[in-house]
Amino acid sequence: MACFSCPASYSIRCSAGGDWTDPNKQKLGSANINGAASSRPMTKPDAVLSQTSGVSATFTSVAPVSENGYISEEQVRQNIPTKKQFVDSHRQGVIIEGGVGYRQTVVIRSYEVGPDKTTTIESILNFFQETALNHVWMSGLLSNGFGATHGMMRNNLIWVVSRMHVQVDRYPIWGEIIEIDTWVGASGKNGMRRDWLIRSQATGVVFARATSTWVMMNKKTRRLSKMPEEVMAEISPWFIEKQAIKEDNPEKILKLDCKATYVNSDSKPKRSDLDMNQHVNNVKYVGWMLETIPDSFLESHLLSSIILEYRRECGSSDIVQSLSEPDDEGIILQEGIECDSHINFLNGLSLASEILEGSGLLGSFSKAPLRFTHLLQIDGRDSRKEEIARGRTTWKKKFSSMPFSPS
Amino acid sequence: MACFSCPASYSIRCSAGGDWTDPNKQKLGSANINGAASSRPMTKPDAVLSQTSGVSATFTSVAPVSENGYISEEQVRQNIPTKKQFVDSHRQGVIIEGGVGYRQTVVIRSYEVGPDKTTTIESILNFFQETALNHVWMSGLLSNGFGATHGMMRNNLIWVVSRMHVQVDRYPIWGEIIEIDTWVGASGKNGMRRDWLIRSQATGVVFARATSTWVMMNKKTRRLSKMPEEVMAEISPWFIEKQAIKEDNPEKILKLDCKATYVNSDSKPKRSDLDMNQHVNNVKYVGWMLETIPDSFLESHLLSSIILEYRRECGSSDIVQSLSEPDDEGIILQEGIECDSHINFLNGLSLASEILEGSGLLGSFSKAPLRFTHLLQIDGRDSRKEEIARGRTTWKKKFSSMPFSPS
Repeated sequence: MACFSCPASYSIRCSAGGDWTDPNKQKLGSANINGAASSRPMTKPDAVLSQTSGVSATFTSVAPVSENGYISEEQVRQNIPTKKQFVDSHRQGVIIEGGVGYRQTVVIRSYEVGPDKTTTIESILNFFQETALNHVWMSGLLSNGFGATHGMMRNNLIWVVSRMHVQVDRYPIWGEIIEIDTWVGASGKNGMRRDWLIRSQATGVVFARATSTWVMMNKKTRRLSKMPEEVMAEISPWFIEKQAIKEDNPEKILKLDCKATYVNSDSKPKRSDLDMNQHVNNVKYVGWMLETIPDSFLESHLLSSIILEYRRECGSSDIVQSLSEPDDEGIILQEGIECDSHINFLNGLSLASEILEGSGLLGSFSKAPLRFTHLLQIDGRDSRKEEIARGRTTWKKKFSSMPFSPS
Repeated sequence: MACFSCPASYSIRCSAGGDWTDPNKQKLGSANINGAASSRPMTKPDAVLSQTSGVSATFTSVAPVSENGYISEEQVRQNIPTKKQFVDSHRQGVIIEGGVGYRQTVVIRSYEVGPDKTTTIESILNFFQETALNHVWMSGLLSNGFGATHGMMRNNLIWVVSRMHVQVDRYPIWGEIIEIDTWVGASGKNGMRRDWLIRSQATGVVFARATSTWVMMNKKTRRLSKMPEEVMAEISPWFIEKQAIKEDNPEKILKLDCKATYVNSDSKPKRSDLDMNQHVNNVKYVGWMLETIPDSFLESHLLSSIILEYRRECGSSDIVQSLSEPDDEGIILQEGIECDSHINFLNGLSLASEILEGSGLLGSFSKAPLRFTHLLQIDGRDSRKEEIARGRTTWKKKFSSMPFSPS
């Protein structure tokens, strides 16, 4: 299946010389998450390109708008609130944090887990998208666009995500009930931070944390935009200081080149990878990155963190090249129980034979890399490569004796 | 990503000469939906093969069992009910139909819709899997396997699906609230029928209907099995007569050959296509079938029904070949409004110019096929082809002026 062509000649310039904190420091790449609404008929794809190398993945986007007071069948069926709601029983959502945060209870469904019965990283990213949108949905600010407020609509602005950092300590299992909290905060003068926290509903144990950075883009000019005062007035009352992950000195992700150890050159977007904004959904980007990692590594390791920097989106006929490079750092002692086991083992303490034999515990002393650097790029005509996204993944070894208790 | 190899030499024979009604008539192919539980460590993949040509897709499967009374962390986290529950507030499920049917309220999530903002057929099939499992979950009969009852566990039996028929009149849109009803009925002496109905929660309008046929298989011998009396005693109190789709004379799906018009020969299962039973999930089969259909057709048509016959599962290193053949039936008048529009047009009545120009309405008078026959097969060594599944899809033309109101 095909995805649309995005004109690579579009360029993005900061239209008002805004203070791009995180984003500019990293040569902003961005992913359209909250595309503003457009009128019927169905919107055309939004090309979202960055200053240097183009852009970006979308979280999904776009809904039609009735500007003439006519209430469409769709509006009736969607029933987007026009005022702030404190509880949504169908979404199992509730406003928390003194009226500004959002919590949603989620049951892990059978198709959201992988072969090991634990929630996939793709499902976790989908939960983040869903709760972010439901947060805006509950706020009464949603203007029928994908997370766009009324003020953003009036200014023809959409949200674009430039960075995402996810840490997973434990993966929820099939049937488990989790609570996902999400909230927003300031990020420089013109950006927004959105954070998430996933907890076990039964025990309150934190399973995962994430933080992301967002900026605004003019939907027509494709230029980054300052945040208009009316939009700041809408969203800043929702800002809180709390951070799910403190990143005083965010790691810079190096750009891989063609010498990378693992290269997968034949990925093409399928129809099912496209979302409401006709863009390849950002979750697909993660899939492409992880597909390069050898099966033997994936079977014995769990992803414990991923950092994504979005740069450009791929076109309908683009061939996506996914590169990854393991770190060569030798033995990395791991946290928690497993780390203790290592130490015990080194000290000659007894360990159950099944752990030693089957778990690959011994293998964790080999020079198995536990971190990977990733690059997605378009394998363009004339061998021109255009960067889509960079990534950095961190892994920990599984206990094979505890297949369903991955931490 | 890889899926496991399934030994093609396995054969299935009806171990007790059971009365295989629907399944045998169709040279049963089946999909493992409700794999029985196994003990830790993680179960190996179940090969599920049919009498003639092997089998099958799985809906997902397998959970560990504690037979020693020890309650594992996983059991605490999953919290599967040991007695019948009438309401599950987290799953938004309720027992209906005089205590035997199940209804679940579902909000369509942002990642469950396609670029046109309507729920994808894959999401609908996922909803069917989820509600079927939650129905068994609520019944108190679930023995930690994927839909397997305690009696099935004792007899080492799993459910395998042989046939699925889905009709979609309208696709739910992003944010819409739907109700999914599911119930079971008898299918011959040894089979079970499971039906579903999807309704708009707001209006009660029926959006989709589905029916499926299930039989039992011995998990070790891979042979079809009669339904033991103790299992019949467990599940037959849940049987009702009501049928979502009446199929007095189910259509036989012809087997395509290499002369098929559309052939996609390079599909390989990825890690993310595998489910808890290490099988390629049956939803993926639908994706492979639809990928052969030209984009131009998919953009202008909506899938209104699909019939699937499951025959065999694919192996980890198998290359899957997907074939499809359009019917050559010329003009097929379509139901409802669109059909009326055709007639109006033929009679020279006025229609809004935007409908005529943009919608491709005129195109529906061309000899565009509205039905396809599908075949999935393994492109094996020595060019040996092994049938995985057959399918039959029916389509109706979209109104481009009503992109979000597909019916």
